[in-house]
Amino acid sequence: MRYSPLLTDLYELTMLAGYLDEGMAEKQAVFDLFFRTNPFEGGYAVFAGLEPALEFLEGLRFSEEELAYLAGLGLFSPRFIDFLRGFRFRGRVTAPPEGTLVFANEPILTVEGTLAEAQLVETALLTIISFQTLVATKAARICRVSGGAEVIEFGLRRAQGPDGGLSASRAACVGGAGSTSNVLAGMAFGLPVRGTHAHSWIQAFPDELTAFRAYAKVFPDATILLVDTYDTLGSGMPNAIIVARELREQGHELRGIRIDSGDLAYLSREARRMLDEAGFPDALIVASNELDEYVIESIRNEGGRIDVYGVGTKLATCSGAGGVSLGGVYKLVRVDGHPKLKVTSDMAKATLPGKKRLLRATGPDGAFIQDVICLAEDDLQPGETVYDPTNPLQHKILPEGAQLSDLRQVVMEEGRRTVAVEPLGAMTARCRRELALLPQGCQRFINPHRYKVSVSPRLNELRCRLISEVCKKGA
Amino acid sequence: MRYSPLLTDLYELTMLAGYLDEGMAEKQAVFDLFFRTNPFEGGYAVFAGLEPALEFLEGLRFSEEELAYLAGLGLFSPRFIDFLRGFRFRGRVTAPPEGTLVFANEPILTVEGTLAEAQLVETALLTIISFQTLVATKAARICRVSGGAEVIEFGLRRAQGPDGGLSASRAACVGGAGSTSNVLAGMAFGLPVRGTHAHSWIQAFPDELTAFRAYAKVFPDATILLVDTYDTLGSGMPNAIIVARELREQGHELRGIRIDSGDLAYLSREARRMLDEAGFPDALIVASNELDEYVIESIRNEGGRIDVYGVGTKLATCSGAGGVSLGGVYKLVRVDGHPKLKVTSDMAKATLPGKKRLLRATGPDGAFIQDVICLAEDDLQPGETVYDPTNPLQHKILPEGAQLSDLRQVVMEEGRRTVAVEPLGAMTARCRRELALLPQGCQRFINPHRYKVSVSPRLNELRCRLISEVCKKGA
Repeated sequence: MRYSPLLTDLYELTMLAGYLDEGMAEKQAVFDLFFRTNPFEGGYAVFAGLEPALEFLEGLRFSEEELAYLAGLGLFSPRFIDFLRGFRFRGRVTAPPEGTLVFANEPILTVEGTLAEAQLVETALLTIISFQTLVATKAARICRVSGGAEVIEFGLRRAQGPDGGLSASRAACVGGAGSTSNVLAGMAFGLPVRGTHAHSWIQAFPDELTAFRAYAKVFPDATILLVDTYDTLGSGMPNAIIVARELREQGHELRGIRIDSGDLAYLSREARRMLDEAGFPDALIVASNELDEYVIESIRNEGGRIDVYGVGTKLATCSGAGGVSLGGVYKLVRVDGHPKLKVTSDMAKATLPGKKRLLRATGPDGAFIQDVICLAEDDLQPGETVYDPTNPLQHKILPEGAQLSDLRQVVMEEGRRTVAVEPLGAMTARCRRELALLPQGCQRFINPHRYKVSVSPRLNELRCRLISEVCKKGA
Repeated sequence: MRYSPLLTDLYELTMLAGYLDEGMAEKQAVFDLFFRTNPFEGGYAVFAGLEPALEFLEGLRFSEEELAYLAGLGLFSPRFIDFLRGFRFRGRVTAPPEGTLVFANEPILTVEGTLAEAQLVETALLTIISFQTLVATKAARICRVSGGAEVIEFGLRRAQGPDGGLSASRAACVGGAGSTSNVLAGMAFGLPVRGTHAHSWIQAFPDELTAFRAYAKVFPDATILLVDTYDTLGSGMPNAIIVARELREQGHELRGIRIDSGDLAYLSREARRMLDEAGFPDALIVASNELDEYVIESIRNEGGRIDVYGVGTKLATCSGAGGVSLGGVYKLVRVDGHPKLKVTSDMAKATLPGKKRLLRATGPDGAFIQDVICLAEDDLQPGETVYDPTNPLQHKILPEGAQLSDLRQVVMEEGRRTVAVEPLGAMTARCRRELALLPQGCQRFINPHRYKVSVSPRLNELRCRLISEVCKKGA
């Protein structure tokens, strides 16, 4: 797939034209991509979207048609259009692998390159990474409460258009969804695809039993019957059991039933009882209908007996507490060798200046203790004092014996990938592994424990110094 | 752009295979696309997405690669794969033009064709139309409170990936946004594009004034200066005014300033005062930062002086009351000449059976009185009794003298468009015109008056009869 380089806010181009005119386009710059609040008022985020982001960067070039369009806007000089004609992204990108747990205020992805190239890619990087990270996080939350039941991503029809649905399927898989209803996502990403029939199938036949029989005849080994078109327990389940018996006589087994409305906790318990009593303990119960992590949790708390959850709207649209956007930002942190700071009226929101490393401190069992952001040249040691990035007065000692490791690696150098494309399954496994190492309190939905993210003493010092300089001289 | 036919839930394909096997694929069917609740707990929706939907239908065909993928799933017979190879959409589509106001429970779009073709397109139609209708509605709400100020759609970086951003820009324009920051949308849809510079521009220079001067030098006739990097009123505005004076000396005029943080009502009033006192009453004040209809309304209530609103996240992600999805559904209403009904445990949610027309009753001045849904062959007259679609006991008289007109037309016949592609501006104008004719109470944000949508006596009768038949015989 080709991403157009016009997939950008206009101001990236006007700034680029300005840098070129000012002779600044080739200055070396460093930008950090990060978010300020964990999504869904939760305790973590699952990083996703790196692979499509690298694809975008590697393929970035302007077509003649795009250049002609830009020239026609009447904003840009012929010299600038010529510059764009030869434009390629030749920078360096540093990031964790997808499926890694990341937290508010951490530099998730860092772009180093000329001011021109690093600025131009802002909008596309934010679009690709913010959305996929948001969906992967939502999926991880949903899978956490599903207790090992399979989660199918069902959201295409409610997504932000075709490609929104496609990226949602991919990211949901990174976060732990095992399969999707989206056939194109199945083909594009090698995901298992799932689905049987809708209510319209039942309606297209004279009655429910005839419809069930017809489906079972066509797919005798893959039949999941939707039992709630008329009356789930009164007709749907009895008819499904008739068909299950008929299938068994022919040497097949009913795969399961699906419930798409009503009280899913109660109906699934009753359906389970009816299937068990009829001799079909292996028939699966699939449930769908506006599910999310909260609904699934309450179904399970009420003893619901669901084997497979189909989660659509609320996964693909990332609805939930805290808004439906990650609020990712992309900030200049160094230019021409000078660390840069953006301050606002809220000093706590001042950015972290300079080129940095992101370290994770873990205990002897691998459990996450905290993350520390330090300067690139920093040699942080356990036992040192580290500082809260939103409040320099808060500090604590990094425990002796903590293992420190870099969370990120260089994934692109001179505009070329330096790491192989990873299979989605490896990302899913990483996410699962890391969630097992993250304190459980940080995974609570309501008022989660805040996972500690600190800054090193050198970074804290630099930041305080830059803040005081800004305050002294004003702008 | 090619939409893949695999852009679908798997169950559309399994059902299709089933219909083929049962010899039912060629039966004539009618499906209605509708939603059950107006979005954002509001009083209306703005229909959008028709043009891309027709593009999808017209281009629908399976590539050999896609067929090979499907064959490899191990679900489908070679006969079915062959059937798909020759598959084209040859049905009829009836819909209103984009920008038309539509309401909950109305059949917005109707597809007639073989059961096979009409079923297969469900997921893609829902994806395309639901999202664009949602964004267009959000944009109309935002434009309503902006009091004639320009609204720029800024949402690409927060959208659901690249294509989500692109469709959001298009739909926002249908709903009334006058321009976009998304350059690709500008090129694809001929929208005006807007944007100047970000905070990073300021940071890339030694100080704010130098950064402002540099931008003004490059774009002397299109300079909008972002004044909130350090201190909006303390440094940003004074520096902007210095540059405005310098520009004027050189025969240019500062286009305006932009504020992206803080109390926008207060800051814009102060900025206006400073610009006016300095002799720049024509310099525009642009504001952005998490804007939506509620924030804009409160800014205006507090006397904010904003000329242009940049609206991003909350427009592109459609956040707001009532969830972030239109909840569009696509229901079978007739097959083989027989009207079909889908009932649920909530009888009020029973679908409206049969092939139907959607009429709008208007007063002598064109003002909307109510909409009426009737059977295709119905000859509804003013003075007749019409019924509430969610409660057949509620009825009222359709006023004598009301003008009745069809809201929809056939837009595709035998798989080919029957109407010309309409310019986006015509859709925007239609939306504006219709909003002026819709009672103001229906446009309130909080507890809007419910615009009446009724069903004709014949449709009500048919529906009651089918409901009682279902109740009598069970499923």
